[in-house]
Amino acid sequence: MKKTALLYALLIAAFLAYAAQHLYMNKIDERSFRPDELRGELGENYVMVTFLSGMEYWKSCLKGFEDAAEALNVSIEYRGATQYDAREQITVLEQIIAKKPAGIAISALDPNSLTEAIDKAVDAGIPVVLFDSGAPGSAAYSFLGTDNYAAGRAAADRMAELVGGQGEVAVITVPSQQNHVERTRGFRETIERSYPGMKVVAVEDDRGDAMEARELTEELLRKHPDLAGVFVTEAAGGKGAGQAAAELERKRPLRVIAFDTDKDTLDMIREGSISATIAQGTWNMGYWSLQYLFHLHHDLTIPSPASAGDVSPLPVEVNTGISIVTSDNVDDYYAQ
Amino acid sequence: MKKTALLYALLIAAFLAYAAQHLYMNKIDERSFRPDELRGELGENYVMVTFLSGMEYWKSCLKGFEDAAEALNVSIEYRGATQYDAREQITVLEQIIAKKPAGIAISALDPNSLTEAIDKAVDAGIPVVLFDSGAPGSAAYSFLGTDNYAAGRAAADRMAELVGGQGEVAVITVPSQQNHVERTRGFRETIERSYPGMKVVAVEDDRGDAMEARELTEELLRKHPDLAGVFVTEAAGGKGAGQAAAELERKRPLRVIAFDTDKDTLDMIREGSISATIAQGTWNMGYWSLQYLFHLHHDLTIPSPASAGDVSPLPVEVNTGISIVTSDNVDDYYAQ
Repeated sequence: MKKTALLYALLIAAFLAYAAQHLYMNKIDERSFRPDELRGELGENYVMVTFLSGMEYWKSCLKGFEDAAEALNVSIEYRGATQYDAREQITVLEQIIAKKPAGIAISALDPNSLTEAIDKAVDAGIPVVLFDSGAPGSAAYSFLGTDNYAAGRAAADRMAELVGGQGEVAVITVPSQQNHVERTRGFRETIERSYPGMKVVAVEDDRGDAMEARELTEELLRKHPDLAGVFVTEAAGGKGAGQAAAELERKRPLRVIAFDTDKDTLDMIREGSISATIAQGTWNMGYWSLQYLFHLHHDLTIPSPASAGDVSPLPVEVNTGISIVTSDNVDDYYAQ
Repeated sequence: MKKTALLYALLIAAFLAYAAQHLYMNKIDERSFRPDELRGELGENYVMVTFLSGMEYWKSCLKGFEDAAEALNVSIEYRGATQYDAREQITVLEQIIAKKPAGIAISALDPNSLTEAIDKAVDAGIPVVLFDSGAPGSAAYSFLGTDNYAAGRAAADRMAELVGGQGEVAVITVPSQQNHVERTRGFRETIERSYPGMKVVAVEDDRGDAMEARELTEELLRKHPDLAGVFVTEAAGGKGAGQAAAELERKRPLRVIAFDTDKDTLDMIREGSISATIAQGTWNMGYWSLQYLFHLHHDLTIPSPASAGDVSPLPVEVNTGISIVTSDNVDDYYAQ
């Protein structure tokens, strides 16, 4: 009699445990996601915002954004501050927010000044993601871009190869921009850690200007006549440093590593005045930015964008990858 | 007359420069991407592969994979090694490759032993992405998962808060698995760098077993009677350490930080035997894994998967984010 009671008790306990587990497991399936296609609605408009809107660099980011828009059947708009001016970018962003678009993908000119405007957009229910250059303190859902520290590290390894692990090197960069700070840090720390025969003798600011970079390089060569290499973290300056290197009359060439793959940089790699440049996954930045905004706008993520104190509704950081372009593979990059 | 000739020459040069630029810019638009919807074909089948296939943890990854399949109109299959056995996982993977699926998302039991099989799949034109636990040396296109170093760092900061920045702490982990190695490293380096009053006195291997973790914790307490906290980098062991902590008769509690959010772990956070656990973006791992495989299978990326020596066709690393679960917010996580 006692044994039977015990058996019943065990069976009931097992059933309850099973039922609880079942209930819990089913909760997952009750969550919101159930679209049978990814297709936007009429008038659904997403905006890409950059700075220096004329720059060739953005073209491939925008192409990715456009391709995703085509695939998802939504419309897009491109807006950019024309100048290298954070206040102008804030104004542009605020004008866009006022129009309540379905989402905004933005490359931030500096890591801090846009935070307030970005947070305002998110508070107003407009999804925002950052691409290319981040604003880590903001409420934006995700950052899609190059792992800039790793890019600087790759540049350092390549520079060491070019100069045989020996000599003085310098960096020309834009210290006000988060991505350039990381590239510089990756380069410097790698040289310090891994190449005892090398030394970073200077870090200069060219404010994204080719002429300035050229003059800085000439000045560096006067101060450090044995300078073996310069790593320029942005596209315009790479060409300026390359010009200075091309005109240098010295036995040992000055090695220049540039950034990005605009036509002039590629031409200079062909000619040999730039030794290498870092190519970025720009199409992927634009394409997945729009995918992310679309998923936020349609509330297709688990957890949903509205749930607080939860894991992020989207991947928080997306490393779009780099590759190194030299005279060996430069031809592959003209089509990008 | 001379002036007019110069003017003509200048105009012709300007036109040629414009034409060259135009030609170059248009090259971008000639590249392959032009679908007007994201929709798979009949019989298009994607496979998710894990190890320890019974584990509750995979359920949410698989839900993401399923949701993406529904949205993209493709079918999926789930396969897993039943044991914690790399050879079994290789066998499963090879059986899947033989069937030529449209793509494979795999969580690698260890960072090296699957590389050959993964490379074989990629060589055969089957797209492969890794999620949750990587195989960095393989030809897989992308890794989607937690930034495990950052997760270890977050655990260290939380542990320091829990123990008031003072005392001996230990780690219980699975040293054969890449993600656990990174979590351990993030935890240990953060303690060493930022908390001079704390010390990591031991790193033990529980082989993913709760009972083993419990015994290891009891042993650690015998060797280090003042042990202030244990960080367990995997779900099963967290519960074992939590049980040891619950039974400990000592004024100062033993703080346990666990990993993942299965029901038992959440229950123990409610009860107080586990102080905190790390929640991962599991749905996002599965969802974006399938999106990536779909884009590779349909050759929708720029550059295309076939182009060699180029930037990766997909983001190479996707950090799906974490959050910290404590008694304050544990209720939000029961629905996941």
